[in-house]
Amino acid sequence: MSEDELLRWLRTKIDPCLLGDDAAVLPAGGPVAVTVDSQIAGVHFVPDLDPALLAPRLLAVNLSDLAAMGAEPAYAFLALSTAPGFDHRRFFRALIEACRHFNVLLAGGDLARSPATVATLTLIGRRPEAGRFLRRADAAPGHVLWLGGTIGESAAGQRLIARGARLRKGRVELPDDLVAGTLLQGAARRAVRRHLSPSPQLALGQWLGRQEAGAAMDVSDGLAKDLRRLCQESGVGAEILADELPLPDRFSDLCREIGADPLSLALGGGEDYVLLFTLPERIVPAEPGARKIGRITRSKRIVLRQDGERRDLPDLGWDHLRSSGAP
Amino acid sequence: MSEDELLRWLRTKIDPCLLGDDAAVLPAGGPVAVTVDSQIAGVHFVPDLDPALLAPRLLAVNLSDLAAMGAEPAYAFLALSTAPGFDHRRFFRALIEACRHFNVLLAGGDLARSPATVATLTLIGRRPEAGRFLRRADAAPGHVLWLGGTIGESAAGQRLIARGARLRKGRVELPDDLVAGTLLQGAARRAVRRHLSPSPQLALGQWLGRQEAGAAMDVSDGLAKDLRRLCQESGVGAEILADELPLPDRFSDLCREIGADPLSLALGGGEDYVLLFTLPERIVPAEPGARKIGRITRSKRIVLRQDGERRDLPDLGWDHLRSSGAP
Repeated sequence: MSEDELLRWLRTKIDPCLLGDDAAVLPAGGPVAVTVDSQIAGVHFVPDLDPALLAPRLLAVNLSDLAAMGAEPAYAFLALSTAPGFDHRRFFRALIEACRHFNVLLAGGDLARSPATVATLTLIGRRPEAGRFLRRADAAPGHVLWLGGTIGESAAGQRLIARGARLRKGRVELPDDLVAGTLLQGAARRAVRRHLSPSPQLALGQWLGRQEAGAAMDVSDGLAKDLRRLCQESGVGAEILADELPLPDRFSDLCREIGADPLSLALGGGEDYVLLFTLPERIVPAEPGARKIGRITRSKRIVLRQDGERRDLPDLGWDHLRSSGAP
Repeated sequence: MSEDELLRWLRTKIDPCLLGDDAAVLPAGGPVAVTVDSQIAGVHFVPDLDPALLAPRLLAVNLSDLAAMGAEPAYAFLALSTAPGFDHRRFFRALIEACRHFNVLLAGGDLARSPATVATLTLIGRRPEAGRFLRRADAAPGHVLWLGGTIGESAAGQRLIARGARLRKGRVELPDDLVAGTLLQGAARRAVRRHLSPSPQLALGQWLGRQEAGAAMDVSDGLAKDLRRLCQESGVGAEILADELPLPDRFSDLCREIGADPLSLALGGGEDYVLLFTLPERIVPAEPGARKIGRITRSKRIVLRQDGERRDLPDLGWDHLRSSGAP
């Protein structure tokens, strides 16, 4: 398929007014939040990943940044560089469907060929009428520290995928030698699904934006690294309780099975795409999966309490310029 | 260098307010034009290209899209995926300097490692107070068709670079066996420079936006392909004169030397980054390099007049999904 053929096909699917010019024109409006994130074959996903899974994952990962801002998603711009043989229609069908689901308008983009597939999405979000944009810098001593959902599971899923697990036609397939014949297959399947299909916490973010105080960000590079960033922006420290970290069902057993340390994966695995946020003690989120994990402190140390001991939070997490993730 | 180290360094160079959160917050304002474009190692540039040249080229290529809209550049968002050994500081120093030159605020981004370097820039531009956004769909029969500058030169430069020409420390170096000892070295050097350092026609675009009528786009995929797109959007045809196409000095001789056909390179070479625009006959641009190349017609044919003959414009040009460029 040539570029012009693909564009003609796309214009039957997307508002053609947005695709005809060198740039998309967006109407006047209030302040906006803008974020950009890439998914790269061999780095963020296995090269044989179904384009119909890649597209919604790309969107979800970016939406998670807007969720962290308390923003309402509005427009998406795609830069897609693909390796030979890439199924563009399959990718775009899934992307357009996912955009529709989240009320996002795919408003423009750029296509190219490339040795390895790289998909970059820019999202523009609005500030909801009754809300404020959330910042990392708004954490204050005394705030309770919360996580919007479990951590570590996506990293476990990523390790399972690296060892051959795949999501095909809506079903997770596990290689025979992986967690075979154990009670852990359900946990393994959930982990693979969690890694490939993260759920951005948009409603939680917008709810947080309606509260009078509190900071937020999304956990994408691992709780340890991201909590450190939040504390730095706010000029505060934190104390978190290892026992209170929300972990998925049978997570420790699953980690044992794949030779990973549960706490390291939870603190440094990354790609959790849940919100990390702070709130004054009296405000409690309705989000059923949210969990208190500690407290913001005046001292700038970031402390992990485990088995009655207090130690500095280990320096784990994903560095986008090195290949260091969790062990 | 780790990601956090790079970010700390960047925050000494860029407004730190823009880098602290999951998304950048931009103030309320009028309608905006948004464009996104990628530069990929091995596709758009040779893998050994100096990052200090890559960065301004990435910006210029995107600014050319805003120029084609008549927009005033405002914000840039970068997604940078780099191969091992990439010199981030060199890239960012050059990018920040180029942004400053064009009054663009680098407002956010995403960093990753990748097998091959891919740099994607999203630009947001404003509508100038007294102007309108230019569209491809505003060409009308009787309009004069213009080019903002010469075409074909960038493609010649690209071919010279493929054969070993390099721009180093501000000087173009030509391999000994390439246009050696001829009068064409100046033309060859200009072509290499033109390819690596395009000049977006922002002032011309904004001037066009202040005129009462006329369509515009930038020539990035070759005049033949881009003129066809402009005519399709406007539901018109065009007649262009081969003799009137603005070509650089000694272009035909240079093409002969590198074994390329001048007309094919001019029509299909691409990456010219000059504006293609239409105006009512009575309006003439002040841009010194602008040249009338023909006229918009009611018939939807796109005709090339050469040596008294009229024939359909050949179907040349760059297809971003195939590897087809000009011969």
